[in-house]
Amino acid sequence: MEHLERLSTYGRNPQGGVSRVAYSEADRLGREYVMELMRTAQLDVTIDAAGNVLGRRGGTLPLTPLVFGSHIDTVPEGGNYDGVVGSLGAIEAAQTLGENKLTTRHPLEVIIFQNEEGGLIGSRAIDGELTEKELDLVSRSGKTIRQGIKFLGGNPDQLASVRRKPGDIAAYLELHIEQGGILDSQKINIGVVEGIVGINWWDVTIEGFANHAGTTPMDKRQDALLAAAKFIESVNRIVTGIQGRQVGTVGRIQALPGAPNVIPGKVILSLELRDLEAQKINSLYQKIEAESQRIATATNTKFAFQEINVNVPAPTDSRIRGLITAAARELGLTTKELPSGAGHDAQDMARLGPVGMIFIPSAAGISHSPREFSTPQDIANGTNVLLHTLLKLDRDLN
Amino acid sequence: MEHLERLSTYGRNPQGGVSRVAYSEADRLGREYVMELMRTAQLDVTIDAAGNVLGRRGGTLPLTPLVFGSHIDTVPEGGNYDGVVGSLGAIEAAQTLGENKLTTRHPLEVIIFQNEEGGLIGSRAIDGELTEKELDLVSRSGKTIRQGIKFLGGNPDQLASVRRKPGDIAAYLELHIEQGGILDSQKINIGVVEGIVGINWWDVTIEGFANHAGTTPMDKRQDALLAAAKFIESVNRIVTGIQGRQVGTVGRIQALPGAPNVIPGKVILSLELRDLEAQKINSLYQKIEAESQRIATATNTKFAFQEINVNVPAPTDSRIRGLITAAARELGLTTKELPSGAGHDAQDMARLGPVGMIFIPSAAGISHSPREFSTPQDIANGTNVLLHTLLKLDRDLN
Repeated sequence: MEHLERLSTYGRNPQGGVSRVAYSEADRLGREYVMELMRTAQLDVTIDAAGNVLGRRGGTLPLTPLVFGSHIDTVPEGGNYDGVVGSLGAIEAAQTLGENKLTTRHPLEVIIFQNEEGGLIGSRAIDGELTEKELDLVSRSGKTIRQGIKFLGGNPDQLASVRRKPGDIAAYLELHIEQGGILDSQKINIGVVEGIVGINWWDVTIEGFANHAGTTPMDKRQDALLAAAKFIESVNRIVTGIQGRQVGTVGRIQALPGAPNVIPGKVILSLELRDLEAQKINSLYQKIEAESQRIATATNTKFAFQEINVNVPAPTDSRIRGLITAAARELGLTTKELPSGAGHDAQDMARLGPVGMIFIPSAAGISHSPREFSTPQDIANGTNVLLHTLLKLDRDLN
Repeated sequence: MEHLERLSTYGRNPQGGVSRVAYSEADRLGREYVMELMRTAQLDVTIDAAGNVLGRRGGTLPLTPLVFGSHIDTVPEGGNYDGVVGSLGAIEAAQTLGENKLTTRHPLEVIIFQNEEGGLIGSRAIDGELTEKELDLVSRSGKTIRQGIKFLGGNPDQLASVRRKPGDIAAYLELHIEQGGILDSQKINIGVVEGIVGINWWDVTIEGFANHAGTTPMDKRQDALLAAAKFIESVNRIVTGIQGRQVGTVGRIQALPGAPNVIPGKVILSLELRDLEAQKINSLYQKIEAESQRIATATNTKFAFQEINVNVPAPTDSRIRGLITAAARELGLTTKELPSGAGHDAQDMARLGPVGMIFIPSAAGISHSPREFSTPQDIANGTNVLLHTLLKLDRDLN
């Protein structure tokens, strides 16, 4: 808690919470503090070419490393827990091993991934997904990603050096706040993450005909916003019409020309679907698309769907879920399996080896907000589960 | 048609149609041309303090004047017919009286109202509604209304001189294109306007709770956009659920924060209701407001309605409607009674005396567009009906 309090001073907002966006001065200072903690925990600290902070600790056998960590960058006006709990928890676990003079069979590697909030940049460099083109995108800091990597001490011309292949890691484990309200509302100590949901995002364009709101009778209209309204309702009805924890959201909408006295001739809106199973996302989309054709006919409009982004679901490893559950129960903690609706660096690490994620409760499910909060007890619980799961993994895995 | 063609050269767009917005140089030149036509028609031309063009012709008796006219200003990228047909038709009627050496019992007064498209400014100066504060609003020309009045040759410090009281006019008659598709689609020559609809505009604010689109289960959401969708559908259902020609439109919508991955926490949208009867508008609003409370409960959101603008309905005079119908039939033309869904200067003149409006067909109902079109025959028909109705009014009214 002392470390967490100290880290929160880097980028602290006058009104509470922190703005420690990747590649900002606050991010750089926060990382220096974290590297100091890592050295104190007897980790061998380096910054890789992608700007990730690595802290290594040798093992007794020549095995692939057990990797664990998280991130310390935040969204603008974010909180003190998202990423931070997992980062400091990982260092705490390493320090506890050192204090207890325990050496694992596997080498250990703590990674503090850079720029998680801006698109999982650090972990995507490691799994080889980060493209040359993306390096020139401007991040929230105002710097391009390329400039940001240099700013953090990395070398964007050497990204090939950080890439790892499937099998290069024994496992990846991440502690994180839930960023949702399930554990908090059900008073459960530890969430055992089933996987990180897939996210599909489409832009939907609805074409009607803009016309005079006074002189066009109701039965002669081609109202794109009325069609959009029916669509938004149908998304909700279809997504909630089957069992499961899938979610569907229309978060953005624009109606043109956008005057009170003109019938909207065009609407552009976003459709986002998330689920642990790509197949379910696809099946929901098929139903929504079919329903949109019925709405188009009923409202004399046209619908067009454009796929903007797809993140495939990243299931966690069932053996690791079992070990997390066992570790938690041995510590007298209650557990629940649940999906992660948010994205995490673990979804990229899942391409390299088996992953597990440990969630702790977020008060009222709030995150990405200065009001983000997890109790010291929950943070201690999560860190203990992380440590004990690591030890079990070290014992069980080759 | 020659006059119409010549007037269309003032402000003509390269791509067709005209942009003759009030107080522009094109507006000033168009008015000069129209004043020349009025003098040729033996009218006594003046510009009043509000910048309206008046053309007077004496009568045989000391009666209040029969007033008729329209406007020649247009919306940006407007057409050649809206306002122009009624203005040139009024001058043509006056000229025909002169050519036939007919003197009416009532004095006649042709008014070309200034800035109709920017809020019925000229007619609202005459009925006393134009406020001092409005004079400082910036019009589409870039000039304030005060500057525009001066530019047209009026005197904004003398507006009191143009105000008229109820009873100051014998009647007001206006010829106009329909700006809707009823006459065109039903192949009817002349529309006898029942009245100009009332227009009520509210801004509706829906408060939900912005939250993470991935981690917030469907049943824990307070989605302001889902509530808005149900609202938009309910407006359509309620407005179309009763007999009549009332219309209801949601033309503008804003969802905040407006990101694909965030559940909208707030929506602001416009609600516009129009009908000939204020009582019906009120009753529709009551139903919509009641339904919004049910939607608020179902979606865990809050609705707030803010009245932005109210134009009360302006019914036309039943006797004048009868005379228009009789005049049209005597000319062998078909007629239909219909409301005006758009606003007109006639709605302000209705505060001063009985009014009537004559509509001619608009091709495909298009207006406020370069594609606006009425046939020469329809324009001739409308002008003839205007002239003959004037003669009947002159005979019947005191």
